[in-house]
Amino acid sequence: MNTRGTLVQGDIWLEEWVVWSKLSEIIESGLKAGGMNIVKKTYHQFMPQGETCVWVLAESHLAIHTYPEEKFFAIDVFTCGKEGNAKKAVNYIEQRLLISDKHITTSIRGVKRN
Amino acid sequence: MNTRGTLVQGDIWLEEWVVWSKLSEIIESGLKAGGMNIVKKTYHQFMPQGETCVWVLAESHLAIHTYPEEKFFAIDVFTCGKEGNAKKAVNYIEQRLLISDKHITTSIRGVKRN
Repeated sequence: MNTRGTLVQGDIWLEEWVVWSKLSEIIESGLKAGGMNIVKKTYHQFMPQGETCVWVLAESHLAIHTYPEEKFFAIDVFTCGKEGNAKKAVNYIEQRLLISDKHITTSIRGVKRN
Repeated sequence: MNTRGTLVQGDIWLEEWVVWSKLSEIIESGLKAGGMNIVKKTYHQFMPQGETCVWVLAESHLAIHTYPEEKFFAIDVFTCGKEGNAKKAVNYIEQRLLISDKHITTSIRGVKRN
């Protein structure tokens, strides 16, 4: 099996914070838009605020860490091979939010460099 | 709260594959070595082979995708702020494995670039 994968890293600041129920709904729709399939979901609410959620996907994973007080979240979408489109998922999510600042990078994974 | 974080991405090929029970034991010891605390763990076994496991940490997350048939795994360790040391965790894990090839990179996250 080809070990090549893609990791899209997004650091996103919003104009207005969106509640978790809405944000997670957008993310799950983004996964669907990117052709990805959810296997498992693990959510943790930090006190006094902040969430971490990880979706294990048939195509790898999506992880998010939120800082509501900073209107910020960090999102990582990892996809293996040609299965799923991490960039498409992140683009979908971006288009549904009012973003004040962002930094999005893409890494190619699982490829020998030597 | 400071949104700054660190993501260490490791693409690692082994000389000899190690079974999941052993690999996950090394990873959990590595998390401890890096000063990180496990909140939740989600594991999925793919058929016919390959594992995905995500540890939600008090300091963010660790995700791994294995390709036993290629003696390869991709590991991502995300830590927030000054809590935990992702590089130390990955170094610990590397030192306990017989590695044939690797590609390790570090990204600074949650910092505005403009």
